Amino acid sequence: MTKSAGLDRLSLNQITTENLNLREAVEGCAQQDIPWISVWRHKVDAIGLKESKKLIDGHGLKVSSLCRGGMFPAATATERKERIDDNKRAIEEAAELGTDTLVLVCGPSPDKNLEQSRKWVQEGIEHLVPFAEEHGIKLGIEPLHPMYAADRSVIVTLGEANAMQRSIASFQVGVVVDVFHVWWDPYLYDEIEKAKGTILGFHVSDWKVPMHDMFKGRSMMGDGVIDIPKIRQAVEANGYHGPIEVEIMNQEIWDAPRADTLRLMKDRYGRFV
Amino acid sequence: MTKSAGLDRLSLNQITTENLNLREAVEGCAQQDIPWISVWRHKVDAIGLKESKKLIDGHGLKVSSLCRGGMFPAATATERKERIDDNKRAIEEAAELGTDTLVLVCGPSPDKNLEQSRKWVQEGIEHLVPFAEEHGIKLGIEPLHPMYAADRSVIVTLGEANAMQRSIASFQVGVVVDVFHVWWDPYLYDEIEKAKGTILGFHVSDWKVPMHDMFKGRSMMGDGVIDIPKIRQAVEANGYHGPIEVEIMNQEIWDAPRADTLRLMKDRYGRFV
Repeated sequence: MTKSAGLDRLSLNQITTENLNLREAVEGCAQQDIPWISVWRHKVDAIGLKESKKLIDGHGLKVSSLCRGGMFPAATATERKERIDDNKRAIEEAAELGTDTLVLVCGPSPDKNLEQSRKWVQEGIEHLVPFAEEHGIKLGIEPLHPMYAADRSVIVTLGEANAMQRSIASFQVGVVVDVFHVWWDPYLYDEIEKAKGTILGFHVSDWKVPMHDMFKGRSMMGDGVIDIPKIRQAVEANGYHGPIEVEIMNQEIWDAPRADTLRLMKDRYGRFV
Repeated sequence: MTKSAGLDRLSLNQITTENLNLREAVEGCAQQDIPWISVWRHKVDAIGLKESKKLIDGHGLKVSSLCRGGMFPAATATERKERIDDNKRAIEEAAELGTDTLVLVCGPSPDKNLEQSRKWVQEGIEHLVPFAEEHGIKLGIEPLHPMYAADRSVIVTLGEANAMQRSIASFQVGVVVDVFHVWWDPYLYDEIEKAKGTILGFHVSDWKVPMHDMFKGRSMMGDGVIDIPKIRQAVEANGYHGPIEVEIMNQEIWDAPRADTLRLMKDRYGRFV
């Protein structure tokens, strides 16, 4: 048996409880002794940055990351500039909330030219690096599953994220490994090795067949086919020992009572992560 | 403008007209001057091999491929042997039908060990090579989109298919490029180059957002985001000038009148392939 992941690393990625506001999510974590939370910007916007910070600090929670920056490709230079400006606001918010990581969902292509969009992603991140450094925020390139290439991210493999990280060559930039997005990749373990020292986050959920909804199709750990412990051990062997976020978009889980979801999440984390 | 694909290369992959039996599909192709058809085994089984061959030959159609062999991984050696035997029957059927290509959908893993399943795939193909050679049938490894990794194929990138092809190192084995499965890949054009001389088939459809069904979510060419001509030109530049199969699983298209579907397919092929 391999060493299990400690509960001191468990983080609720707020999208797992999408039906809750930030107060409800934070209180739930506090009640269930979940030490970390990953916060989504739309939830922070809903009650304001100061109130969000007060709530989180008041309940003794730590913020594993802010979700999400990115969305760099756009058809015009003006739009791309607006995206950069929005990412700067996200960096400021991340710093204010006391996390050191902004997760980047890099964005889809506005046209059929994926190569150009991938360049825009890299240019966008390069543009943000000095600003991120000033604010003490690291930028985590999260490769998304290739089934999201058309509507969410042109960055679809860890290999691609690693190559971009190396090309940008800044300590401010790293990668985020989400098992749902990368589990299928024949080069996964090679690429986790190549990511050594640059892994900024580790996200868990599961892939269950059949999947009835491409966006809200993730399952609780243990319900699917992903060898989560193997991937966790690989990221640990390559230097990542930070919080482990449970990030699940799933309508059934969203509709369940808060305490049930958080208890289930803790239980599954202990047994399947 | 680049040279368009000639109608003399157009092939109806029979799954595009899943509601039709082989006779109806063959007659439809003949009526619409579609010169090629790719035949599915369950359609052949329904009327028998001899009747199928008679129908196809009688209407002057050529068979671009037989779908499908593969499905190599299984939990027990006995089951894996049964899969091999079934693939041998598929090779015999392909030869009888007068095509030179059996498309391999390699199969999912029976457990969480993808690496082991990928080895079983390679062993399965290696086992078939001499039999395929005797029958004059080439085996086309078709990488499927990674969203099918859990239920259809552990072979999910052209890079992986190419590596397996090189490792097996037989002229009897090649790869099949389906735009729906590979369009998202940042290394696609490099891998098409590496596949030079081994490409056995080229399949087209499109990726439209939102996709409401992961299996039956493919669209008609021109309705989605894939730069099909760019991929076609790449496979041509690397030696493939054979039939181009239109392969679309889509309930709406299945439910449309046959003549409408085939006319639409020809029109879109001319404009978007």
